[in-house]
Amino acid sequence: MPRVGVREVLVEAAVTEFHRHGYAACSVDTITKAAGVPKGSFYNHFASKEHLGAEVVARYAAGSAWWQEVDPGLSPLQQLRARFRAVVDVLAESRFTRGCLLGNMGTEVADRSDVIREQVGTSLCQWSEDIVAILRAARAAGEISAGPDVERLGPFLLDAFQGAIMHSKVVKDVEPLEDFLSVVFDTVLR
Amino acid sequence: MPRVGVREVLVEAAVTEFHRHGYAACSVDTITKAAGVPKGSFYNHFASKEHLGAEVVARYAAGSAWWQEVDPGLSPLQQLRARFRAVVDVLAESRFTRGCLLGNMGTEVADRSDVIREQVGTSLCQWSEDIVAILRAARAAGEISAGPDVERLGPFLLDAFQGAIMHSKVVKDVEPLEDFLSVVFDTVLR
Repeated sequence: MPRVGVREVLVEAAVTEFHRHGYAACSVDTITKAAGVPKGSFYNHFASKEHLGAEVVARYAAGSAWWQEVDPGLSPLQQLRARFRAVVDVLAESRFTRGCLLGNMGTEVADRSDVIREQVGTSLCQWSEDIVAILRAARAAGEISAGPDVERLGPFLLDAFQGAIMHSKVVKDVEPLEDFLSVVFDTVLR
Repeated sequence: MPRVGVREVLVEAAVTEFHRHGYAACSVDTITKAAGVPKGSFYNHFASKEHLGAEVVARYAAGSAWWQEVDPGLSPLQQLRARFRAVVDVLAESRFTRGCLLGNMGTEVADRSDVIREQVGTSLCQWSEDIVAILRAARAAGEISAGPDVERLGPFLLDAFQGAIMHSKVVKDVEPLEDFLSVVFDTVLR
């Protein structure tokens, strides 16, 4: 049995490499070198670069700042804002390089790998389901009106956030993300 | 003087190639072959692949279905919807492969080429300024309330559209784009 350690090291190195350079630019060789493991060990752990790619997407999504603990005293809407803000803060730390690996992989690889495309879809879906759950709690708490269909609004907000992340990467500035927060919380959810 | 014809043929071939395969995957060789011109002629027309890339972005943006003529009898808000719908129809024709070249280039190249990054920023800005102009007309016509700040709302809507395009590419389905239209016109602009 291969050691669990090597697999972990490969996934962690690949999260960084794919995020920094893109999927196509990283070969199995690049990744094993970055991980400091022999190239030959790769296929003991992954059937292909594609399968590693899918695992990287799942790992990155699960480790997002979105899921960090927030102050339990916050109202649902304040919680929603705090979660978006936590992700914005991480993007600001890297000065709006790299973007979100989900959006990057979705854009770059969706037409080339069904394995990765499906994992991006699953991870986006889990994220937007969390937004929907918070919106439902906000409605129950009387923070948003009964009007909007939260089942559509959740995925819409996530897509809008992904678009703003791409835009902030283009202008190398927080402005599109601040606009996102302001339009969402001052207009859309009023 | 190089013939104008060759330059045109190069730009047109590169729009298709970059859109289909991504920027990094296309070499100058790929593009001159697709254009059917000698590789040596490339540098008579462009200082680098990067400069071609920036021109491709500008050309693609200017040729978007967004700018097609719409029924002048439509109200500003109906016009806005018709313009988004025209772009969705083009994306549906290619069965949600490829996505929007602005979003693709923004995501793929923003950290690698300032020349291309700045052209993507300019093209997104021209597009969102058009949205802002239509929103202003809609407000003047009493179709939307005086509440929302249209200067922020325009770029927000474009980013949301870009995110929905990415998402539709991931799920290979129109649903994220239909959700975009429904949330924007039934909730955000109500």
